[in-house]
Amino acid sequence: MRAFLLSNSTCSGNTYLNHAKDDLARFLDGIDELFFVPFALADVDGYTAVAARFFAGIGISVTGAHRVSTGLLSQAPAIFTGGGNTFRLVKALHETGRMEAIQQAVADGASYLGASAGTNIAAPTLSTTNDMPIVEPPSFSTLGLVPFQINPHYLDPVPGDTHMGETREERIVQYLEENETPVLGLREGTWLRCEDGRYFLEGMERGARLFRRGAEPAEFSAPAELTSVLTRG
Amino acid sequence: MRAFLLSNSTCSGNTYLNHAKDDLARFLDGIDELFFVPFALADVDGYTAVAARFFAGIGISVTGAHRVSTGLLSQAPAIFTGGGNTFRLVKALHETGRMEAIQQAVADGASYLGASAGTNIAAPTLSTTNDMPIVEPPSFSTLGLVPFQINPHYLDPVPGDTHMGETREERIVQYLEENETPVLGLREGTWLRCEDGRYFLEGMERGARLFRRGAEPAEFSAPAELTSVLTRG
Repeated sequence: MRAFLLSNSTCSGNTYLNHAKDDLARFLDGIDELFFVPFALADVDGYTAVAARFFAGIGISVTGAHRVSTGLLSQAPAIFTGGGNTFRLVKALHETGRMEAIQQAVADGASYLGASAGTNIAAPTLSTTNDMPIVEPPSFSTLGLVPFQINPHYLDPVPGDTHMGETREERIVQYLEENETPVLGLREGTWLRCEDGRYFLEGMERGARLFRRGAEPAEFSAPAELTSVLTRG
Repeated sequence: MRAFLLSNSTCSGNTYLNHAKDDLARFLDGIDELFFVPFALADVDGYTAVAARFFAGIGISVTGAHRVSTGLLSQAPAIFTGGGNTFRLVKALHETGRMEAIQQAVADGASYLGASAGTNIAAPTLSTTNDMPIVEPPSFSTLGLVPFQINPHYLDPVPGDTHMGETREERIVQYLEENETPVLGLREGTWLRCEDGRYFLEGMERGARLFRRGAEPAEFSAPAELTSVLTRG
């Protein structure tokens, strides 16, 4: 299984996906076509056009997954799922049979790319999304391409903040009260590259924070190989 | 229907519920017993003890709703649902029949109080919670005591923030792309008091922000009566 899971698609002060452009081009070497999954935003055609402009710059043509049958999607050479609202994305994928079609494509060798909500759905469930549950999907289950949860846009507590909502870490600790699956908090500007069972944390040095039930959170700077910590029982 | 819906239970620099103590005492005048719904936190007995300590200070005894039958809960004189994780709360209420028991109690005249997650569930659905979906409830439907959605802990954008996650307003706009129900964003330190179809915004002056599909958001300082804006078609 090959996947490139970005915390976020646009870094502050930069353009769409530009912070990862060279690495995306290298990851997609030899691929000249991908299907873009736009369902996390309301304007699926407009969103597909944004993705197409970026990927044209690295020699890859883009087709919107909403424009093709599930049969064709399941034979995709590569799939990129964009960010937005995870609940809207997951509802659309389950209700149209595209969740299974993407799983089939990846099982058959398609490279999977995701950003934000698109990275959330690479995990077993949507349960570590940051998004508002604006619609009710038929199930919280997602692609399950990796055996752990990911929290994209991972955010450290802001010193001196007087807002009383839970910090991101407190939310993930609540998740671990109810679930045993570890959670990788990917800070903005980073991504996890997955290559046949090996996991590489890349992008900005600030890296990621790994949460496990019953253990202190662990810090990792990028670049780092996380295979052993992400696959131990 | 009588309800007292707090944005949050603890204000920065204050103790549990103390910012609303006088108003809660006035709202509960003549009531000496309430049932506390603790399911938004994992430690239901510890949480009930926290609530009991506060309400003892205004002469009200507290029983944990997890310690009584749904039949007894449905005859409660007053019910207070505490904050925590909305998904955990809603799952527990649906799976144990307590969602219907609380609805029955309120229909029969019980005063309803909520803070944060407890305020979320007074709306028709949990869809405007800020919480992480750590567990999957059988349904997003909630008590429906009021005909609009509430976003507790409503937070204005922070000037100069470089984090690329959606602002609270952007999340609510996404909700309105998918739903027509208005959303009242209650800033911390405020509450909405509901008295037989009339709605009063009270607490800290910073008040609330009301979002409707197709309209500019509207600002309201506390105190203000919001009956006409919250009930127009």
